[in-house]
Amino acid sequence: MNFSSDNWAGASQPVMDALTRHNHGFAPAYGTDPLTDRITQRFRDLFETDVSVYFTATGTAANALSMAACARPGGLILASETAHLHCDEWGAAEFYTHGMKIVPLSAPEGRIAPEAVSEALERFGQASRFGAPAAMSLTQATECGMVYSPAEVAALTEQAHARGLVCHMDGARFANALVHLGASPAEMTWKAGIDVLSFGGTKNGCWCAEAIVVFNPEALPHLATHRARAGHLFSKSRFVAAQFDGYFEGDHWLDLAGRANGAAARLARGIDESGRARVAWSTQANEVFAVLTKAQIEKLRGEGALFHEWSREGCAADEHVVRLVASFATTDDEVDRFISLL
Amino acid sequence: MNFSSDNWAGASQPVMDALTRHNHGFAPAYGTDPLTDRITQRFRDLFETDVSVYFTATGTAANALSMAACARPGGLILASETAHLHCDEWGAAEFYTHGMKIVPLSAPEGRIAPEAVSEALERFGQASRFGAPAAMSLTQATECGMVYSPAEVAALTEQAHARGLVCHMDGARFANALVHLGASPAEMTWKAGIDVLSFGGTKNGCWCAEAIVVFNPEALPHLATHRARAGHLFSKSRFVAAQFDGYFEGDHWLDLAGRANGAAARLARGIDESGRARVAWSTQANEVFAVLTKAQIEKLRGEGALFHEWSREGCAADEHVVRLVASFATTDDEVDRFISLL
Amino acid sequence: MNFSSDNWAGASQPVMDALTRHNHGFAPAYGTDPLTDRITQRFRDLFETDVSVYFTATGTAANALSMAACARPGGLILASETAHLHCDEWGAAEFYTHGMKIVPLSAPEGRIAPEAVSEALERFGQASRFGAPAAMSLTQATECGMVYSPAEVAALTEQAHARGLVCHMDGARFANALVHLGASPAEMTWKAGIDVLSFGGTKNGCWCAEAIVVFNPEALPHLATHRARAGHLFSKSRFVAAQFDGYFEGDHWLDLAGRANGAAARLARGIDESGRARVAWSTQANEVFAVLTKAQIEKLRGEGALFHEWSREGCAADEHVVRLVASFATTDDEVDRFISLL
Amino acid sequence: MNFSSDNWAGASQPVMDALTRHNHGFAPAYGTDPLTDRITQRFRDLFETDVSVYFTATGTAANALSMAACARPGGLILASETAHLHCDEWGAAEFYTHGMKIVPLSAPEGRIAPEAVSEALERFGQASRFGAPAAMSLTQATECGMVYSPAEVAALTEQAHARGLVCHMDGARFANALVHLGASPAEMTWKAGIDVLSFGGTKNGCWCAEAIVVFNPEALPHLATHRARAGHLFSKSRFVAAQFDGYFEGDHWLDLAGRANGAAARLARGIDESGRARVAWSTQANEVFAVLTKAQIEKLRGEGALFHEWSREGCAADEHVVRLVASFATTDDEVDRFISLL
Repeated sequence: MNFSSDNWAGASQPVMDALTRHNHGFAPAYGTDPLTDRITQRFRDLFETDVSVYFTATGTAANALSMAACARPGGLILASETAHLHCDEWGAAEFYTHGMKIVPLSAPEGRIAPEAVSEALERFGQASRFGAPAAMSLTQATECGMVYSPAEVAALTEQAHARGLVCHMDGARFANALVHLGASPAEMTWKAGIDVLSFGGTKNGCWCAEAIVVFNPEALPHLATHRARAGHLFSKSRFVAAQFDGYFEGDHWLDLAGRANGAAARLARGIDESGRARVAWSTQANEVFAVLTKAQIEKLRGEGALFHEWSREGCAADEHVVRLVASFATTDDEVDRFISLL
Repeated sequence: MNFSSDNWAGASQPVMDALTRHNHGFAPAYGTDPLTDRITQRFRDLFETDVSVYFTATGTAANALSMAACARPGGLILASETAHLHCDEWGAAEFYTHGMKIVPLSAPEGRIAPEAVSEALERFGQASRFGAPAAMSLTQATECGMVYSPAEVAALTEQAHARGLVCHMDGARFANALVHLGASPAEMTWKAGIDVLSFGGTKNGCWCAEAIVVFNPEALPHLATHRARAGHLFSKSRFVAAQFDGYFEGDHWLDLAGRANGAAARLARGIDESGRARVAWSTQANEVFAVLTKAQIEKLRGEGALFHEWSREGCAADEHVVRLVASFATTDDEVDRFISLL
Repeated sequence: MNFSSDNWAGASQPVMDALTRHNHGFAPAYGTDPLTDRITQRFRDLFETDVSVYFTATGTAANALSMAACARPGGLILASETAHLHCDEWGAAEFYTHGMKIVPLSAPEGRIAPEAVSEALERFGQASRFGAPAAMSLTQATECGMVYSPAEVAALTEQAHARGLVCHMDGARFANALVHLGASPAEMTWKAGIDVLSFGGTKNGCWCAEAIVVFNPEALPHLATHRARAGHLFSKSRFVAAQFDGYFEGDHWLDLAGRANGAAARLARGIDESGRARVAWSTQANEVFAVLTKAQIEKLRGEGALFHEWSREGCAADEHVVRLVASFATTDDEVDRFISLL
Repeated sequence: MNFSSDNWAGASQPVMDALTRHNHGFAPAYGTDPLTDRITQRFRDLFETDVSVYFTATGTAANALSMAACARPGGLILASETAHLHCDEWGAAEFYTHGMKIVPLSAPEGRIAPEAVSEALERFGQASRFGAPAAMSLTQATECGMVYSPAEVAALTEQAHARGLVCHMDGARFANALVHLGASPAEMTWKAGIDVLSFGGTKNGCWCAEAIVVFNPEALPHLATHRARAGHLFSKSRFVAAQFDGYFEGDHWLDLAGRANGAAARLARGIDESGRARVAWSTQANEVFAVLTKAQIEKLRGEGALFHEWSREGCAADEHVVRLVASFATTDDEVDRFISLL
């Protein structure tokens, strides 16, 4: 019953097989190999446009390097108050941008409210000594497991573009959002005004495969050198490419996300129907937020369940919101056992 | 006949097997998993002392983060004029240290001369407006394929420590040097005064396994946070650990380095005995530097040989020094074919 | 009727006289001149302890360099939500610290509440991926014109020191606070736990005289080099020293601050007694915050009064809080004319 | 007999008078005052084009902020091997540019040789992992007291612009060069391809008046914010403007430079005619480089002469090149006494 995080899972078998399959012979280093080229083309097909693709070691690197490439002195990054980029990356974005401030915006269930963007844009004009907005970052699916519709994304990016901001999407759980929406990758991103995407594979069945996908290269000059200078250009790049090869083949990535989302839905349904607990808000991707009593938390942990406490929002005195993350490797048995213990 | 670089090779079979072997179940993220712990212990055994170990995605990251952790304003890094850290890392060390200068020292065949260190230490006192020396970085084996003896390392670090410098070793080809010397890892590092080591596995048969090994933690405060903030803390750290597991098992890493060094030796011998070309200097690890005529270079390339031009040091008008790198994957056939073409 | 800011005034006559007086002959550059030495000693006498003193060009530089010298990766700066360091310095602190985050604390009238500190310290432990508190910055007098008592300062620094934070005081209006409190400089600073002070002279009658005063040099290593590297070491340092010479002589600085505080008090009293408007909160130093109607604001500006709008806190629909800053150069006539227009 | 440096002198009387003259009433802060506007216009008249002007506290700040505004990752700064920017500014340029490398070019008597530029441009292409050239910095007059002709400047900037570099001139001793050349400020700068100039007033009779003068604003985006964020925007900007007012009035600045250059010429002539020593190279601005014996150096110092030792270039065993700097405040008596002691 491991609901700690989707990055506790290993790699899926097809991803491992692809690693093995591509491990032969010599290949040019630093991303100039044919497999990296082929996978880059694959990203172009997937997003139905001419993208640049930069593999990185981690999602933190993908986020922070995206910000670095559009940084300017006194710039501000608008992001949700729960954004991973802000709350969970050791100040990487500030470091890589040489000190841009992140302005945390009100974001119920992780989704930035359009009013929060307009208010921030109004508040910080070009002459503000606090700083001037330079970029906006959305997380899709959000850190609270919710998903923006393409129209919701477009409503935010339209405001941001009108003021010259670069629009970034943190897609650590991009596949989970995609499966939920049933939209196309293009609709979820550049068609909705996204300039640059952190495309995550690690949480969804790769072991180390992240990519910065750039739709608007003019907005992010020098990104290639930013990455290389930061030590994020793999010499044996083909092994990241290999993972993506296995990941994309036969829509394997969508299967993986479908399994994770399905497990989360089963879990949410079970909690709701148990009559013993409730979900804190609805479940759209692969994360369930549930209100449990402290006694329940203790008991479940005693039986081996692993999960994190999230907040005390909307809780009674003896309650806590917990986060339960499903991954492709989560089994129905685990879910059902958790429910039955409840 | 691929002598471009040892990072053009793939991963060795035992390393791939270890990846597969450890890909099951869940494991805590961000380096807190049992396998990472076990491999850290393995490093301690290997180096016969209590080291801290930080995996990174690339050697550039390992070098630059080591420098970051001992950076200070106005600090200088003493390094050889051919140091990878200086010449081939896109200014990563300067970026991560917020602008420390690298002072390139005279280094015949990549080995820093003791006089070059004493001269630099004398030239830049604490009050220099140019800067004051803060760290020294040696590469072992050097970028020219030569190896420092432990006594040579000690002679340099003694001078450096007397002035309070932190001593770093770039061990991208540590195994190749080790096999050549027949010394112990401890003798090559902390017993010779090294405070921190970039331990490379990638060039010697891993696909992505680098580690910062710290012998003197007081000299490198906040290294863990430096790494995390830079996006170099893998969430699924166990997969780097897995590579090292396969790498170390049964002294596999020494076999790999032995194969690479052996291929280089065979190549050097062949060139010498050919009577048609000469080695530029002796071959100690897995790199051969040979003086070829331009006609020879053209012909060999026409036949499919891959290698880089290095310099024109000690060359006649129609000659060039080329670098020929052997890896664990280099075969005797390739070597012999190269010689026969010559 | 110029109540825009105290940095709109010029220099006081004794400060100008001192500049002229010390402008003869040659003096060593970069702060090694006898006058700089003498003024440093003056600071030691003033603060009754052995301080290091670093002149800077601006208060922003003094604040940001103080933070730079105690920066660490992933560090957090606790400061009030209205702190100049956070709101009005173009991200200087983030830039100089290579991206430390500022955590804005609830601060009624600019004074950080002790609970806000304890809450922040509890929330961000050493293992937080958001960051770990490294420094706390208080402004004295606050941006809202209020003054911490030494006991209040001590209550905050005690908490902070217990967790290893460096305690900084932004003393852009230090003299105004000092005059209000009737305490000694020592009582207001190191005796109350302050490690480093930005000592401002510019707003109180100098034209460009700011100093970083260090009480705890171990907590701020390399500060001298931080300053020099940032281009904040004046070659003709003696001219800053000269200003301080005029500033301190015969307690001139306290006279200046007394005049400014007196003008502010007269203004606050006038507003209160006018029956037409009210002060938003009490006046302790040289800034008055008054609630005016929009009609009043318009009328006063039409008559030539200069001041900034501050907030809408506690205001009715047609009201606004305005900030009225008095300086040593403010005359009773100006104040009385403002009141009579009201 | 003070020949230490021109920054050991005070301020000239007209500059001090201007400070006093402009010290009345209130003026808007942060460079928005009418006097700053007027002086900016004065710079436009002087340079016969529409320039942006940014006052800074020091020449180091002017240089480093110029570099900051044209920085890019992996960028290289081409500068002379004796450039103040490289050798004497505590790594400020590296700090402000987040780690650009400075490539020191061969520069006889401080003047960069055209071949050194072409060689560097050829050596470091866009794909170099060492870095790619982004800016070139010339010092006028050079650190060795020599002056580039406008044609020589143009020959260097033409090469640099062909590769997209930004061309900077460090004019710490701009007036001294101008007086020597008899050229116009425009001819010395933008007409010869300079994009940005550090215009120094401090060494030539101001006490703290430096300005970044931008001819090509597109090449240096965000410079205003770079300066503000670094704490180099004076709140009472009018006092820097006031110094420039006195400095420019009635060509006072050219008188000052003429006096300094004249004193240097007298000194050089005296040394040459003494038969006891020789100048190391010719004297064009306000610095004399002379070869003295160690006995002479000792004797002169014993009699109170102040100067720095420079190098041992072209010296016999018991000789040393010393640097003798004249300023506007140097008297004929001092010069003659020095010569007679010789």
